[in-house]
Amino acid sequence: MTISEIDFSVLTGNGIEAHSFKAGEVIFRESDEAQQLFVIKSGAVTIQSGNRKLAELSTNEIFGEMALIDDAPRSATAVAKTDVELVPISEKQFLFLVGQTPFFALKVMRVLARRLRATSKSF
Amino acid sequence: MTISEIDFSVLTGNGIEAHSFKAGEVIFRESDEAQQLFVIKSGAVTIQSGNRKLAELSTNEIFGEMALIDDAPRSATAVAKTDVELVPISEKQFLFLVGQTPFFALKVMRVLARRLRATSKSF
Repeated sequence: MTISEIDFSVLTGNGIEAHSFKAGEVIFRESDEAQQLFVIKSGAVTIQSGNRKLAELSTNEIFGEMALIDDAPRSATAVAKTDVELVPISEKQFLFLVGQTPFFALKVMRVLARRLRATSKSF
Repeated sequence: MTISEIDFSVLTGNGIEAHSFKAGEVIFRESDEAQQLFVIKSGAVTIQSGNRKLAELSTNEIFGEMALIDDAPRSATAVAKTDVELVPISEKQFLFLVGQTPFFALKVMRVLARRLRATSKSF
């Protein structure tokens, strides 16, 4: 699998409003209520739990999907590593995308599977 | 989320041929090529990596989905804990189910998200 297979750039096209965060700003915190997932339109984001860095993500990658999927609070904190532009996807949009586009569902599964493999390896 | 939301019993209905394994038998090994995921029709299965037990699963739960999703070898070994009956789902059937039934896709995502949370907590 190449990285392009889990590229979510289709969700960051023109006409979708992006949210901007400055380098160092917290996007969400562990245990926050979750309203949306984010696609990174530009910049880099660090995902961390306490002092432990779980992932570093960049343009066209998604994060925050877990809380939408299992309806639980945020499992980690997301911080802007650089200035970033993010496209938020609401739970409603997420469910619509899953229902309408099987490839979107598969891509989200691939992201989860990849993170699960990475997490298991880092024991 | 209750356990019934990630119940895959719909896939173990009459007319689908189940495979039987005796207690102690290996269903697949870490690093094997992956052809299918399994729904547990009856019995219990232990998922392990080396000597580390990752999960114990029972009736109407699935396992082996990761290798189908990201097309990589098995990430863990599956052993029959008791005598078990398993319904195999091929990659083709999996892709069909994802495409036809958004709830199936969401359920698989929930399984992955739950395992990811469990794995992250066990650091």
